[in-house]
Amino acid sequence: MRAPKKPATTAREIGLCDVVCDTAAEAVAGADLVVLCVPVGAMGAVAAEIKDALADGATVTDVGSVKQDVIETVGPHLPETAHFIPAHPLAGTEHSGPRSGFAELFDDRWCLLVPVENSDPEAVAKLRRLWEGLGSNVEEMDAEHHDLVLAVTSHAPHLIAYTMVGVADDLGRVTDGEVIKYSAAGFRDFTRIAASDPTMWRDVFLSNKDATLEILGRFTEELFALQRAIRTGDGDHLFDYFTRTREIRRGIIDAGQDTDAPNFGRESKAKT
Amino acid sequence: MRAPKKPATTAREIGLCDVVCDTAAEAVAGADLVVLCVPVGAMGAVAAEIKDALADGATVTDVGSVKQDVIETVGPHLPETAHFIPAHPLAGTEHSGPRSGFAELFDDRWCLLVPVENSDPEAVAKLRRLWEGLGSNVEEMDAEHHDLVLAVTSHAPHLIAYTMVGVADDLGRVTDGEVIKYSAAGFRDFTRIAASDPTMWRDVFLSNKDATLEILGRFTEELFALQRAIRTGDGDHLFDYFTRTREIRRGIIDAGQDTDAPNFGRESKAKT
Repeated sequence: MRAPKKPATTAREIGLCDVVCDTAAEAVAGADLVVLCVPVGAMGAVAAEIKDALADGATVTDVGSVKQDVIETVGPHLPETAHFIPAHPLAGTEHSGPRSGFAELFDDRWCLLVPVENSDPEAVAKLRRLWEGLGSNVEEMDAEHHDLVLAVTSHAPHLIAYTMVGVADDLGRVTDGEVIKYSAAGFRDFTRIAASDPTMWRDVFLSNKDATLEILGRFTEELFALQRAIRTGDGDHLFDYFTRTREIRRGIIDAGQDTDAPNFGRESKAKT
Repeated sequence: MRAPKKPATTAREIGLCDVVCDTAAEAVAGADLVVLCVPVGAMGAVAAEIKDALADGATVTDVGSVKQDVIETVGPHLPETAHFIPAHPLAGTEHSGPRSGFAELFDDRWCLLVPVENSDPEAVAKLRRLWEGLGSNVEEMDAEHHDLVLAVTSHAPHLIAYTMVGVADDLGRVTDGEVIKYSAAGFRDFTRIAASDPTMWRDVFLSNKDATLEILGRFTEELFALQRAIRTGDGDHLFDYFTRTREIRRGIIDAGQDTDAPNFGRESKAKT
């Protein structure tokens, strides 16, 4: 693991925060709201570090991509006087660290609140207003369902993208130079998400093991059926499958979760 | 298969071409250059249809995503007097049809020429100049290598994206509405390429069967190794793998084959 000092140094350099502290305990002292923004695997240790410094009535939330594991590792450390409200904003890019934020990051993105047993409704309502104020749409969900939904919409796709990029890198008969030159044919879309932070994603997979493995199992089953259709020349199976997947894309564009500009609008941007 | 009339009607409506013909034979009469732009599975039939109408010394090329199959199905139909130079511009978006072109489509994209035995060097040089005039970088490659390179950079990624989108659509415990709402977490990148034309892609997989199945076999092997690392909690294996895949992304950006704007620059575009 990298030393935790570096992001603080960068935050100071770019003037990101009014106050940058050197320890987590120092940072939470007297705070009404504490937002844990560390890889999921580090949440428990940070909770242990801050527990005695938390103000009475403070709300503790997080932005981790997995919720059951965070609840299990953070929850037991927190004092009774704190309001623990796990959360997950579905926003961000393949870049991370203090330099990667921007004002519109949360606009029209979803933020999922995952209240635990005994979460104070008033504290939840307050946290909701914060996320709405940042531009997000807010939804509540239970932790188990959250982890399954995210396994489908995020965790499995990331692992698959990482895998495909690794395969391409590893292929003796096609050089890396060729893969890079000819990536516009489809591959480059995979490389974007496969460029995401390795520590964060290692922790996501290890802490959402069951749901991720379940979805990957379904994926493999379906992939084998399509491979079989290719091998046996079953064009109708392929055609019907590919027609169905188009609808999902349409739904995403209609829901405002992506641009309908061809190629994500890359081509036209390149000209400006 | 859809009736081949529709694109011609659209082309007339939008004034795409000076002359729009109703048959392929009519279109090629007297032409110096004939470019076959139909799904790979239709290339042979079109070649049979035009063969008697081709002018002496005409160059016949194509834009198909698979080259060995096109050579086998088109080549035998063409008269000795024609110059056959298979080609593949690595450009295009998830949209297709006459309305989907734009002036910058080929700018800084690669076009692969795959000359066959006895291809006239002068005709090849002329075709190269045409693609360069359209803004492309041109490279020559043999057909077998082309089909392997494209299996890695395009065909396998497309099949994997189609598969993942199909799995998400098919999952009982997570609704389509949820998949669509929460797609920004990674899944939406897959849906773009899984929205590509079903006929074109059915034909690509059926006609580049061997190379596609080879790469998918490697992919599955690697995916199983990563799944095993998740199951056994081997964080180092995951971390090292994810670190390696980041480099490939860097290479693609440095080679000018993608934007380094976060999220393909989607967020900032949405504001304009």
